[in-house]
Amino acid sequence: VMRDKGRASARRPEAGSSLRRLLRELEAVPHSREKAARLFEWLLAPISSQQFFDHHWEKKPLLIRRCNPVYYQGLFSTAEFDAILRDRQVQFGVNLDVTSYEDGKRETHNPLGRALPSVVWDFYRNGCSLRMLNPQAFSATVWHFLSLLQERFGSMVGANTYLTPSGTQGFAPHYDDIEAFVIQLEGKKHWRVYSPRKEAEVLPRFSSTNFLQSEIGEPILETILEAGDLLYFPRGFIHQGDCLPEAHSLHITVSSFQRNCWGDLLEKLLPAALQMAIEEDVEYRQGLPIDYLDYTGVLNADAIDPRRDAFMRKLHTLITQLVNYAPVDAAVDEKAKGFFHDCLPPVLTETEKALSVYGLPARWENGDVQDVDVPFNAKTQVRLVRYGIVRLCNEGDKILLYYTTENSRVYHKEEPKYCEIEPEYTDSIEFLLSSYPNFVASYLNKDCI
Amino acid sequence: VMRDKGRASARRPEAGSSLRRLLRELEAVPHSREKAARLFEWLLAPISSQQFFDHHWEKKPLLIRRCNPVYYQGLFSTAEFDAILRDRQVQFGVNLDVTSYEDGKRETHNPLGRALPSVVWDFYRNGCSLRMLNPQAFSATVWHFLSLLQERFGSMVGANTYLTPSGTQGFAPHYDDIEAFVIQLEGKKHWRVYSPRKEAEVLPRFSSTNFLQSEIGEPILETILEAGDLLYFPRGFIHQGDCLPEAHSLHITVSSFQRNCWGDLLEKLLPAALQMAIEEDVEYRQGLPIDYLDYTGVLNADAIDPRRDAFMRKLHTLITQLVNYAPVDAAVDEKAKGFFHDCLPPVLTETEKALSVYGLPARWENGDVQDVDVPFNAKTQVRLVRYGIVRLCNEGDKILLYYTTENSRVYHKEEPKYCEIEPEYTDSIEFLLSSYPNFVASYLNKDCI
Amino acid sequence: VMRDKGRASARRPEAGSSLRRLLRELEAVPHSREKAARLFEWLLAPISSQQFFDHHWEKKPLLIRRCNPVYYQGLFSTAEFDAILRDRQVQFGVNLDVTSYEDGKRETHNPLGRALPSVVWDFYRNGCSLRMLNPQAFSATVWHFLSLLQERFGSMVGANTYLTPSGTQGFAPHYDDIEAFVIQLEGKKHWRVYSPRKEAEVLPRFSSTNFLQSEIGEPILETILEAGDLLYFPRGFIHQGDCLPEAHSLHITVSSFQRNCWGDLLEKLLPAALQMAIEEDVEYRQGLPIDYLDYTGVLNADAIDPRRDAFMRKLHTLITQLVNYAPVDAAVDEKAKGFFHDCLPPVLTETEKALSVYGLPARWENGDVQDVDVPFNAKTQVRLVRYGIVRLCNEGDKILLYYTTENSRVYHKEEPKYCEIEPEYTDSIEFLLSSYPNFVASYLNKDCI
Amino acid sequence: VMRDKGRASARRPEAGSSLRRLLRELEAVPHSREKAARLFEWLLAPISSQQFFDHHWEKKPLLIRRCNPVYYQGLFSTAEFDAILRDRQVQFGVNLDVTSYEDGKRETHNPLGRALPSVVWDFYRNGCSLRMLNPQAFSATVWHFLSLLQERFGSMVGANTYLTPSGTQGFAPHYDDIEAFVIQLEGKKHWRVYSPRKEAEVLPRFSSTNFLQSEIGEPILETILEAGDLLYFPRGFIHQGDCLPEAHSLHITVSSFQRNCWGDLLEKLLPAALQMAIEEDVEYRQGLPIDYLDYTGVLNADAIDPRRDAFMRKLHTLITQLVNYAPVDAAVDEKAKGFFHDCLPPVLTETEKALSVYGLPARWENGDVQDVDVPFNAKTQVRLVRYGIVRLCNEGDKILLYYTTENSRVYHKEEPKYCEIEPEYTDSIEFLLSSYPNFVASYLNKDCI
Repeated sequence: VMRDKGRASARRPEAGSSLRRLLRELEAVPHSREKAARLFEWLLAPISSQQFFDHHWEKKPLLIRRCNPVYYQGLFSTAEFDAILRDRQVQFGVNLDVTSYEDGKRETHNPLGRALPSVVWDFYRNGCSLRMLNPQAFSATVWHFLSLLQERFGSMVGANTYLTPSGTQGFAPHYDDIEAFVIQLEGKKHWRVYSPRKEAEVLPRFSSTNFLQSEIGEPILETILEAGDLLYFPRGFIHQGDCLPEAHSLHITVSSFQRNCWGDLLEKLLPAALQMAIEEDVEYRQGLPIDYLDYTGVLNADAIDPRRDAFMRKLHTLITQLVNYAPVDAAVDEKAKGFFHDCLPPVLTETEKALSVYGLPARWENGDVQDVDVPFNAKTQVRLVRYGIVRLCNEGDKILLYYTTENSRVYHKEEPKYCEIEPEYTDSIEFLLSSYPNFVASYLNKDCI
Repeated sequence: VMRDKGRASARRPEAGSSLRRLLRELEAVPHSREKAARLFEWLLAPISSQQFFDHHWEKKPLLIRRCNPVYYQGLFSTAEFDAILRDRQVQFGVNLDVTSYEDGKRETHNPLGRALPSVVWDFYRNGCSLRMLNPQAFSATVWHFLSLLQERFGSMVGANTYLTPSGTQGFAPHYDDIEAFVIQLEGKKHWRVYSPRKEAEVLPRFSSTNFLQSEIGEPILETILEAGDLLYFPRGFIHQGDCLPEAHSLHITVSSFQRNCWGDLLEKLLPAALQMAIEEDVEYRQGLPIDYLDYTGVLNADAIDPRRDAFMRKLHTLITQLVNYAPVDAAVDEKAKGFFHDCLPPVLTETEKALSVYGLPARWENGDVQDVDVPFNAKTQVRLVRYGIVRLCNEGDKILLYYTTENSRVYHKEEPKYCEIEPEYTDSIEFLLSSYPNFVASYLNKDCI
Repeated sequence: VMRDKGRASARRPEAGSSLRRLLRELEAVPHSREKAARLFEWLLAPISSQQFFDHHWEKKPLLIRRCNPVYYQGLFSTAEFDAILRDRQVQFGVNLDVTSYEDGKRETHNPLGRALPSVVWDFYRNGCSLRMLNPQAFSATVWHFLSLLQERFGSMVGANTYLTPSGTQGFAPHYDDIEAFVIQLEGKKHWRVYSPRKEAEVLPRFSSTNFLQSEIGEPILETILEAGDLLYFPRGFIHQGDCLPEAHSLHITVSSFQRNCWGDLLEKLLPAALQMAIEEDVEYRQGLPIDYLDYTGVLNADAIDPRRDAFMRKLHTLITQLVNYAPVDAAVDEKAKGFFHDCLPPVLTETEKALSVYGLPARWENGDVQDVDVPFNAKTQVRLVRYGIVRLCNEGDKILLYYTTENSRVYHKEEPKYCEIEPEYTDSIEFLLSSYPNFVASYLNKDCI
Repeated sequence: VMRDKGRASARRPEAGSSLRRLLRELEAVPHSREKAARLFEWLLAPISSQQFFDHHWEKKPLLIRRCNPVYYQGLFSTAEFDAILRDRQVQFGVNLDVTSYEDGKRETHNPLGRALPSVVWDFYRNGCSLRMLNPQAFSATVWHFLSLLQERFGSMVGANTYLTPSGTQGFAPHYDDIEAFVIQLEGKKHWRVYSPRKEAEVLPRFSSTNFLQSEIGEPILETILEAGDLLYFPRGFIHQGDCLPEAHSLHITVSSFQRNCWGDLLEKLLPAALQMAIEEDVEYRQGLPIDYLDYTGVLNADAIDPRRDAFMRKLHTLITQLVNYAPVDAAVDEKAKGFFHDCLPPVLTETEKALSVYGLPARWENGDVQDVDVPFNAKTQVRLVRYGIVRLCNEGDKILLYYTTENSRVYHKEEPKYCEIEPEYTDSIEFLLSSYPNFVASYLNKDCI
């Protein structure tokens, strides 16, 4: 009986916890952007987000030491993890990785099939680390937490949890391709963080392989993270964490800004810019010089030839002029579509559900349907349930409204969701967006929201 | 508050209902095959299953009229359906079809995306029928019910539910490729059943298209089914049901024996028999007569030629001799593998869970793992949790143990589940099977069950 | 100049050669089946084809020793091979394999790209064997020879040529999946032939891998083949040939009856027979016994159970009755379609060309088209240019006329060729076929021939 | 007999013709680039190529009227076309299109299969035009002609021939995506050429659909082209040609510069430039502003926001700086690889063949291989057989030598041909290229050339 109680309580923040209090306060905050900002400030307190973005974001690690082991309590716990294993279909390799790093050797020990508690805990007892890959699919609080934060970053926010037995290390030193917020939830962990090894590994677009200890130099930061502490480091910073003999460790790493740099936008923008330039400017359609192969190519890289100079000048001009044809807004929207597909759906309060399409009174009762008519008229006050859940984008001649509300908590389990908007309704959508968080008394295409 | 209560109670059989009582009784029945038999007897009572299989199964319709509207109560209800729409991710087209049949025209009206109650009930109010395609994925009782029945039939048991507004019909007359048990749960429905139109449509392997009223002749059975009644008809019997003006209808159709005829087994058996004959008997590897094309082929179908006669005789001999090479048991096992993949996982009682791998005491408690050691020794008494959940099959040189316990309630969502068994353990498995339902004190490869 | 002359003359049989004389005589033989028979008699002389088919075909090797080195002269020669390398796009790996077998090790040495004489001869000088894979695509005589023979066998006739330097061996011992006629053209070769090692390798459907000398036992035939000799052995007979120190060897292996046994026909016939039985006989559509999984399957293979006996009897009956539903003629036609696709196109004489669609007088001359009207009227005498070049087959409701005349000399380079025949013309086609080789004065659908 | 003679003579330029004389003279020209230049001058005479490139190329049509009907004689003729139909496997739809344009309706009449003379000429007599799609695969002179010209343009040179009956038109007005040289070979044709209709259709990258007469305005050039005349027009110029009642027409259209404009090079260059910039410059890897979605996207296209201005400025800078990372020479080589794959193989003279790998003396003679040793030593004088047949390109770390000599006369029938060159041999290759057309006495990797 005790055990069951323990599990149940593990699933939502403690009545008195800081996070529980915060989430309740946020319910009263009208604007979802403001909710996100307040949550992020709480995450970093006492560092302000201004300070953080000015001095640390994409620049250097930040260690926040709180001496308050319950600060992050309620976000996630090993007890919740145990309950999830028991009640949900957690699959090895899909939702959970069993790993070890010993004597410089990193191994993965995933069996096939469902991760039952008895098997998982047996691995743990034998010194393996347990990485849960998408706790937001199983934990309502983690889902809530990440879905709010994604509005702060304008980029997908993900998470893994890591449970490590005392006296062991689960992963080899490496760097990742995301901005990492390591939130210590239970126990302690010894961390070492190292600078990027060279210019080309500063803010890298892809994660590294596992490194040897001999490849990474000396740490620039070494610390023991305790429950309630936070450690941030930018992508490219090599890191490794191991448990002390006296305590296990549970942390959750919140991540963002994967593939979200200027180069990623340019990958969408440049091909479109070139196609537009070719269509609109005959200079791009003119033939190459018939003799160009004679003074170009790697064999001619060092050739001194006025024809080569002219050829290069021409190319430079054409590249520079691309700026005039670059469809920046369309490229941004392409990127936004990806982000909207990546987004977690919003977590609605009971009140919000009741006032949304999920709360319509239509139902089966007393042997018949009741209250099927939608209680919605020209005077009904409406607003978006969150700010960052819809985006109008062009696609060819059409206007599409992308939305996140029917996304799945499982990454990309659902296709991108959108509906076509007749041009005459775009003003309504814009009005709705610009009026947010205020309610407005106007007609709205109810199918989409 | 009332509403919530109503919904919750809808989800499990009423305390006093016949089904609830039965399912509780079945918990005490030791053999799962016996559970299945008792459930099936209850379904058909007062007709015995002996009577049913002798006179109706695959032969002719059976109507059981009970004048007891609560007989099937608790199996499924519109209130449960409403609760499912509210709480679960029901998708139009995947889990739910919206249909109509008016003026001889059959239409499907599925929108895209999630089937929210307000939208579904709006369709219903406008005269559409609602077919839920796999209620066992959403309703624990339907799952329980079907998972027991599948042991009775040795063939996949499925179900659809049909909710029809008063005064309407949702489907055109047609026949199906399954044995159908129409269980009337609420309201009434007017049914007409017609004999197969010709020999070739008796026990057909594939469902028909929709028929015109003019194509189907006169019904051999016409009745008004009321709650508590059951109507069975074999595959190939054309049928149509429509609601009277005074009452809606909810029924669940339980189905089995899709693609489970002798021909289906022969489709697996014959190619294997031929390969074996070719391998083992040189007669099958001897060359065709060099002149055979001269007296065979459609152009020579009527030719009178002694060489043709000899050719035909030879083929007849070779076909007849296939019997000697037919690997019947291997072909049956191939078919069994398909059935095991189709099967619903068993529904375990709390006691069963507690005594199985799902109930092992390993857990996280007080900041550490507890009781990880499996309380299992040479004296531990074990048995299969159900009879029909494992099957040993050969595959090449290997012995594979197929099992249903990790299947999904969603059809084929999981891959077929099996593990390889070392030859020295097959006796243990056989012993375990033959001892069922008794417990035995022998070692068993615990990973598989 | 001399060299050129040498090459040119190599390309067609010598004026005085036996083959040259034969081919000229065959031109006067009216029936193509008779041409094929006469060619085959010549190939085997002094053994009659009756003797051959009675005693050797698919039974045991036949060695014909002629002491007449020019008997097969003109069929192919190393000089012609040299000319082909020079003039045609022969590709390593596609048309030519360079191989060696030394110290028990079989290797292939194909470079990429075109096989130029200088490279090929360099390999040869270094002891490599040269296998040309489809000489019929390059040599008009080989094409002519094989295209005639294919009417004798009613099965595809193919060929490879093998040129081996003195004192070497090019291939490891192995058996093939075809009836092989080794025709020694130049030099000598030491051959050893071995019986199939076991019943299962008698008339095998697939070729073997390379064998070790220790795996094949003692030869049943050992001989030195000299130019003008022939060695036949059935599929499944292991063989190896090596050159004596004093002479190189060139032979061509003519092959037939690959995948042309009763089992191959049954592979087409049985699935069709089963589908037909299921459609026409309800016994095949009746459900399996609901308990059949209890007494069948490998685990029950030794079970003694009257239900099992009944189950087996039922299956035996159903298999035996398949005979009544077997669409033999349709299956033969399916097989015939494959053969017609495999066939080489016929080699037409100049006279035949002139009298066929290839010889119509339509042409460009003096600045305009001339004689475009087809000189064809109701009195025009027509016949098929060969007997075995067309076949009428059903396909669903259609009647298709398959023909070989537009096939390529390169295996399957063209799709199967056929045209649809209106039912009212099938009698004409049959009349044409049955009148062959006589000319008839009837209208004929000229597009097809 | 006469006819045969006619055909044979049709296949090569008349002894006295201008082209025949020219090609013979070109044999003596040492440098292939010079051969190409001289051939092109002859094609355009009396217009110089300087004049042509200054005033017409990609700018406006050029009509050269010669009053010399035999000027182009020997390049191609209807008699040669007739001979090709007779002797070669010309396939409808693959090598030959049968078309008509009547009453504004453009139709294609291709049957399936081989294009036999009698069928082709029947279409022609009924007013259809005949377009041969790759005459270079069938005509040695066209092959020779195009293979020389491709060195003039540094871009693939292709050709179609068009035979049109008197009084008909075969094609609707349209524009193409290539520079077109219409060479009138026989008869006359009435041509109308129209300016591009708008800026976007000047030098288009893709051909147009067929136009209605009402869509194309008035011709800027209208003329009757007679044998010996030439008409050039740039891509994008709409054109149509029809035959006068009194004469048929045969012309060959030589084409070049398909997909060979600056934009085509930029399509290869820009993605590579961006990847390089991202790798080398951290500015491209820095994260986007976290709020960028708020002031960008089509919905914000007109927003006035300083953050938007900064965002745009940043993008402009990044695009402009791409110039610094653009791997122009590698991109040119990528383009060159495509050109080398497109190229026709060179036509070698007998002397050239004799001195190349094709003329090595290795052969089969007198029952054995002769002269296999390559007569090649350190003093052997070598040179490239043409200038534009090899190109050294980098690919990753490797140096590849691409070559055209083993290409097929059929477009892309062979894969791109190249061999890897060890770094120490690149100097030899460069030396060989720079010494051309002089012979040099150095070692050369003979496998490649």
